[in-house]
Amino acid sequence: MPTQPRAQVTRESIMVAAASEFDRLGYAAVSLSLILERCGVSKGAFYFHFPSKIALAAAIMESEQALWPELTRRWDERGLDALRTLIGSTTQAVEMISGDPIVRAGVRLSTDPEVHASGLRPQYLNWETLLTVLVERAATEGLLRPGVDPVEVARVLNAVFAGNREIAAALTGYADYVARMDQAWRVLLPGIATEEWLTQWRTASAGGG
Amino acid sequence: MPTQPRAQVTRESIMVAAASEFDRLGYAAVSLSLILERCGVSKGAFYFHFPSKIALAAAIMESEQALWPELTRRWDERGLDALRTLIGSTTQAVEMISGDPIVRAGVRLSTDPEVHASGLRPQYLNWETLLTVLVERAATEGLLRPGVDPVEVARVLNAVFAGNREIAAALTGYADYVARMDQAWRVLLPGIATEEWLTQWRTASAGGG
Repeated sequence: MPTQPRAQVTRESIMVAAASEFDRLGYAAVSLSLILERCGVSKGAFYFHFPSKIALAAAIMESEQALWPELTRRWDERGLDALRTLIGSTTQAVEMISGDPIVRAGVRLSTDPEVHASGLRPQYLNWETLLTVLVERAATEGLLRPGVDPVEVARVLNAVFAGNREIAAALTGYADYVARMDQAWRVLLPGIATEEWLTQWRTASAGGG
Repeated sequence: MPTQPRAQVTRESIMVAAASEFDRLGYAAVSLSLILERCGVSKGAFYFHFPSKIALAAAIMESEQALWPELTRRWDERGLDALRTLIGSTTQAVEMISGDPIVRAGVRLSTDPEVHASGLRPQYLNWETLLTVLVERAATEGLLRPGVDPVEVARVLNAVFAGNREIAAALTGYADYVARMDQAWRVLLPGIATEEWLTQWRTASAGGG
């Protein structure tokens, strides 16, 4: 099928153009004609790939969402403790969000009230679930301070990721998102992890580990 | 001047209608004609009050921003320690954001990339500044754990407020913003405050104080 690769290129160019406009303006402000203008694709070619603007938004969100189970699996395979897995995997996620327009747009669309109003499933609960699994594992591994509630910690982490994303997007075009999260971990960990874990962590960090 | 009160009512109804649409859709997606339709005001009457859509957005943001110095002043006058002032004043701010469409829209507009692109001043730095002043005062009052950096704490707090606002807006229409922030304080404080302060705080909270 000689047309397959060309169709794939068209689909990809629609998604990249739409992603950069959704990321910049939000879902409601981006018209289909703006997207078509940006990628130089005809309306007919567009409808060959996507039945509607919301279907295109869903494809961008799916493409972003598909990254996280794979990322989680790779970090689980490394056999690190749950807190190191949590910090390592989320740092990599933040790097991926900062560097790729489709990932960025997927994250932004999943918090867009208009996208929610359309009936597409919100992404927050998934992130909160991923984070909760790791913080609960840290609890069973004995890495959390006494009295720390894993579900509350996961919700706060989720808020810190969302808030720093929004701030970094508005102020620096994502340039300092990774740095802001590094800073956030330094503030959050002393309230979450045991002294023993923190001492090991700081020694390893000071040694560049 | 008998027309003054009526003009004031018109101006207010434009601002409320615009605020609820900006809050729902973001700045770029809301056309002037949608705003006029929502408040039932003619184009001529609109231009009597505001020269442009961005001037209207600026007025909404100003109205929101004007609340915080007054709120801060009132909490300072109570003579509480810096951490209690910080928690009390920010909790009240979160309640005000949750309950008032103009305040809500002001906060949302101040993080809107299109509003930033127009050259209006971002609000993040102001919040970060307000928070930094209080956390630095807590440091001089000896309320912070050794090794805690007040500027880093203020940036994380700012991210938690922004993130929980975004999450509460998307998932519950702000209904659980206050509850999410209460939860966040329980997770954050053990990493920030001294054991002595925390013990007093928990005793007072348990006693309903």
